[in-house]
Amino acid sequence: MRRLSILGSTGSIGTNTLKVIDANPDSFDIKYLTAGSNAKKLAQQTRKYQPDAIAIADSQKADLLSGELSKLGVEILTGRKGLLEIAGRSDVDLVVNSIVGPPGMEPTYRAVQAGNHIALSNKESLVMAGNVIIAEARQRDVDIFPVDSEHNAIWQCLQGEEYGEVQKLILTASGGPFRNKPAQELARVTPREALDHPTWNMGKKITIDSATMMNKGFELIEAHWLFGISAENIDVLVHPQSIIHSMVEFQDGSIKAQLGLPDMKLPIQYALFFPEHRPVQWENTNLAEIGQLTFEEPNYKKFPCLRLAKQAIKLGGTAGAILNVANDLAVHAFLNEDIKFTQIPELVEKALDRIPIIKKPDFEEIVESQRETEKIVNKLIKKRK
Amino acid sequence: MRRLSILGSTGSIGTNTLKVIDANPDSFDIKYLTAGSNAKKLAQQTRKYQPDAIAIADSQKADLLSGELSKLGVEILTGRKGLLEIAGRSDVDLVVNSIVGPPGMEPTYRAVQAGNHIALSNKESLVMAGNVIIAEARQRDVDIFPVDSEHNAIWQCLQGEEYGEVQKLILTASGGPFRNKPAQELARVTPREALDHPTWNMGKKITIDSATMMNKGFELIEAHWLFGISAENIDVLVHPQSIIHSMVEFQDGSIKAQLGLPDMKLPIQYALFFPEHRPVQWENTNLAEIGQLTFEEPNYKKFPCLRLAKQAIKLGGTAGAILNVANDLAVHAFLNEDIKFTQIPELVEKALDRIPIIKKPDFEEIVESQRETEKIVNKLIKKRK
Repeated sequence: MRRLSILGSTGSIGTNTLKVIDANPDSFDIKYLTAGSNAKKLAQQTRKYQPDAIAIADSQKADLLSGELSKLGVEILTGRKGLLEIAGRSDVDLVVNSIVGPPGMEPTYRAVQAGNHIALSNKESLVMAGNVIIAEARQRDVDIFPVDSEHNAIWQCLQGEEYGEVQKLILTASGGPFRNKPAQELARVTPREALDHPTWNMGKKITIDSATMMNKGFELIEAHWLFGISAENIDVLVHPQSIIHSMVEFQDGSIKAQLGLPDMKLPIQYALFFPEHRPVQWENTNLAEIGQLTFEEPNYKKFPCLRLAKQAIKLGGTAGAILNVANDLAVHAFLNEDIKFTQIPELVEKALDRIPIIKKPDFEEIVESQRETEKIVNKLIKKRK
Repeated sequence: MRRLSILGSTGSIGTNTLKVIDANPDSFDIKYLTAGSNAKKLAQQTRKYQPDAIAIADSQKADLLSGELSKLGVEILTGRKGLLEIAGRSDVDLVVNSIVGPPGMEPTYRAVQAGNHIALSNKESLVMAGNVIIAEARQRDVDIFPVDSEHNAIWQCLQGEEYGEVQKLILTASGGPFRNKPAQELARVTPREALDHPTWNMGKKITIDSATMMNKGFELIEAHWLFGISAENIDVLVHPQSIIHSMVEFQDGSIKAQLGLPDMKLPIQYALFFPEHRPVQWENTNLAEIGQLTFEEPNYKKFPCLRLAKQAIKLGGTAGAILNVANDLAVHAFLNEDIKFTQIPELVEKALDRIPIIKKPDFEEIVESQRETEKIVNKLIKKRK
């Protein structure tokens, strides 16, 4: 039985992780569950999986958990402090970090510091603090298993291979809802249009990141940290069907791809059972039925976020954190109709240009650069309103 | 320096092997070269690579080699006997068997008996004598590295993976020149039409095998022996662009594919340097430029050879040899316009039905079944003329 801690168990990846666990009975002992604010769902999960302890980050929701669940003998922690404490408990074999957004970054860092292997779904951890987290993971011999379908695909393609023989990583991208929209029309795009995404069912923030292709930019940065490949050797390839999840090209020109229908349960299961392909098949991919797969170059001019992400990789240090925070604020401003769609990358670029980058930051300096970016980008947004 | 023996060095795979060797100088010591009858080319290769010994199977061509080359101190062997002797010399690290057709089978067997690892391009070895050769290879701890692009792709996809976790092998097929021809028109197909194949530049026999899809049938049988997968778990998928060379589906539904432009030098180089991806890139595959990859189910009714090959796997024993010899004779009869295109699979099926199958043959019994099949199929062809 592998002992698990699931951070963010009530979100989309968290609940899919629990489905994978249900489908593989007697394989896991769930020691810890945490949620942001969905106390009701966390209580249900706690009754079902009987963890040793749970944490809810939103302290105001703690009361909803205490009465009934304390009878089960479950330890209940609350607030950000409680979440971080659970992330750092080391009596587990694997921490699944499926927290969405910047709040997921520090739990990853804490888990790594505690020497816990991590199945990582939280994008911000490596986008913002890749240098610190990867250095710490290396020092403590901690494995970071990517749950994201693209990085999971690359990871699968690299099994049995030497990283030094990689020539290029090829990240596939659906291209987002504006793939075929003329560039000059993007300035007039409304939040409503941008939220209508074809393939994956996602939250608002992530959907806008898909429309600007900043989500692919984040994945470029994650791929850089996960696999130690430089920005110029990571390509983005638009592949609207999202069947090929990503590819690796080796230095002899041989390309390996991992493919299948889009279903997060497959990469989650692979990360949980690595290196085993468990005999629970989530989807039956019939390529003859799918019929065709298409590919095109991404348009770096129309989607400057791709270029900005590569720039952040090259700048290094706190650039990833600045990029991420600036984008976060810009996306929210766009959703509030305070700025235009095309101003999202403009703001990110301004932030990268104006905020001094610390080349080898420690964790505190990354947190500090977040605060500074917030200040500056909020000012820029106010000016534009 | 890896010591190499190249059997069939003047053919297409043989010359491509030498191109790979030229591109990777100081990696190989070519000890032996053999050819069927192209004495002139063999002489050129001998001057360039200075092997210890050469063999020419066609004894009548031996005189063309003796004079000049004997001055180089090269040992010159002749006839079938000379070829087999070289195949069995064990002072090499790898034997490349790139002989085309049934004459390549026994050299593989001899090489395996001598304990030599083999880079295998000759199809007939495993199609006809898979059981004997694989059993012998296992006993002597001999590796058989597939050079064929499809099997090489599967082999690459299986690196770092457990064979026991494979659910399905997916062999891709161009579909041949008659992919879109209505089935009822196949009976009227002329040799000329059948010889016009789109993607690969091949010999006449192989081109007809591509038109009947028997070449894919052979590959089904080879895949069965190389990877130990049963007939029902090997699928054929028509993929006219021939970019994805083949795929492996694991028991969790994850699919790995190996892809690239069609160029035999890549799989040859991989087999020569396994497990290394050497930094000599033969082709730069640009999927955005290629644009689309398409897939369709093969038509088993229109192409009965696929079904017959699966039947031969299930029948086992000498069935592969019978299938191969019957097909060989039928294809030559078609090229001579003695039988119709659609009579090729009919003859193969008759042979499989009529000739008693020895379930666990030794090598001699396989050779004997060849002779018997020849007799019976030649009679059947005569009747039809």
